[in-house]
Amino acid sequence: MAVSGPDTLVIVRDVDSLRRRIAAWRRDDLKVALVPTMGALHKGHLALVQRGLQLCDRVVATIFVNPKQFGPNEDFGAYPRQESEDFQLLAAAGVSLLFAPDVAAMYPPGFATSVRVAGLSEELDGAHRPGHFDGVATVVTKLLLQACPDAALFGEKDYQQLAIIKRLQTDLNIPVDIVGVPTMRDADGLALSSRNAYLTADERALAPALHKAIVAAAASIAEGGDIAAALTTAKAAIAAAGFGRIDYVEARHADTLAPLQNATEPGRVLAAAHLGRARLIDNVAIQR
Amino acid sequence: MAVSGPDTLVIVRDVDSLRRRIAAWRRDDLKVALVPTMGALHKGHLALVQRGLQLCDRVVATIFVNPKQFGPNEDFGAYPRQESEDFQLLAAAGVSLLFAPDVAAMYPPGFATSVRVAGLSEELDGAHRPGHFDGVATVVTKLLLQACPDAALFGEKDYQQLAIIKRLQTDLNIPVDIVGVPTMRDADGLALSSRNAYLTADERALAPALHKAIVAAAASIAEGGDIAAALTTAKAAIAAAGFGRIDYVEARHADTLAPLQNATEPGRVLAAAHLGRARLIDNVAIQR
Repeated sequence: MAVSGPDTLVIVRDVDSLRRRIAAWRRDDLKVALVPTMGALHKGHLALVQRGLQLCDRVVATIFVNPKQFGPNEDFGAYPRQESEDFQLLAAAGVSLLFAPDVAAMYPPGFATSVRVAGLSEELDGAHRPGHFDGVATVVTKLLLQACPDAALFGEKDYQQLAIIKRLQTDLNIPVDIVGVPTMRDADGLALSSRNAYLTADERALAPALHKAIVAAAASIAEGGDIAAALTTAKAAIAAAGFGRIDYVEARHADTLAPLQNATEPGRVLAAAHLGRARLIDNVAIQR
Repeated sequence: MAVSGPDTLVIVRDVDSLRRRIAAWRRDDLKVALVPTMGALHKGHLALVQRGLQLCDRVVATIFVNPKQFGPNEDFGAYPRQESEDFQLLAAAGVSLLFAPDVAAMYPPGFATSVRVAGLSEELDGAHRPGHFDGVATVVTKLLLQACPDAALFGEKDYQQLAIIKRLQTDLNIPVDIVGVPTMRDADGLALSSRNAYLTADERALAPALHKAIVAAAASIAEGGDIAAALTTAKAAIAAAGFGRIDYVEARHADTLAPLQNATEPGRVLAAAHLGRARLIDNVAIQR
């Protein structure tokens, strides 16, 4: 039986082909990691691949710009698509298999099922992007059950998304380890994001103010400062830097995302704000 | 490695124990069938076991009276529970493993996820039992992912439930074959149901009128009779027999459950009506 080695990246577009290739690895007792992405890859995605290769023998990446997680006025049409560049990056990073289905393969006629995580999905980004996390929960459930990997890796940059995926994995008893990977940042602190491509040079220059403001808030809270005051200061700093609408700057429990009661709980400061065409999100731990 | 044979029925109450035993069979390349039930077993359930044993090497049954699929004014508290009798029936039928979790094992604190099949879940029984099919879809998804069987068997008596489970299996890419098993009936035509236990002797005597009426309607439609007229006649017959409220008597497409346009489509007549404390449902094929 031929088993493709880790050096050859194969692309498949349907679930049967995906499963056939993974089944061949399973027969050789190889462990499989899944890295779901929407493409437009950057070093943050490659950090997920790297972690996957540490945990498992083979890494499967997926590229699917999921229409169900975009609102009617969001950037589904404009979201950057660059499959051939992505393919090269994944091949160089050691990915063995790329699953890149089209929308009809994921949502054929008659598709009617959704997965919803109550509570967590309505907070923070969920309050500003109605339906977004239902779309995320549904597509991630599908990808996990299509590939049945041992581990699946998600970036902490989308911290609320990670919390929702951990919750649905537990609740639905999906047999997989969900692994969060720390956010990758440019030297000036800006979290890597495919949507950073929307920024003009001027906007890019001021974008790190978001990270700087939440780092300062987290430090203040960790030192025992008043939580509300720290968040107000952060919002003022983000606005002063030149951001447009600030959707939220919040201190939350690191696991439940409930409002943080005090600095002795594991906490996280999370923020979302608009800058030109981009809506940037970021979050940092409150390090006691 | 010890593998329990098909003659010994073992009961487990947590997912880890369930998975450990199934994993042992997997190492021996044995195929596994799942028969989810709410207990109070009758010959209809045993027909599911029998079909499971035809398709697979081992049958796992589950008994879980799922609170999420009962409405606030429904019979969750009164639903018949008789685990030791059920255990004997399953052992005699050749079931190898019984998974009988308590509510806290299925829905621990913090549980927040639901699975929903839009459209199909709102029709027929769904219109009369709001939230019922969301509860069914969620618990069945969990059971399928807890056991990861090769096949899972469900009775055609709950025809809409079967259609919803087939839909979510397809939509979420759950790697399992969903198998429908024909309804078992008493000699007088009454579909076997755990809820028949609610009937008094007098009610039991007139209960077969439901089946008789939908068989007549299906025959009339199959012969080219007017669909609406056939359903009106069936409703009148059910009312005349002594049933209380009739929730619906409908002719639907056998796969999509959309209203039947004509007798050349694959069709099904489905009905639900109240009789004393019981709410009885039944359905039959329109045989062309």
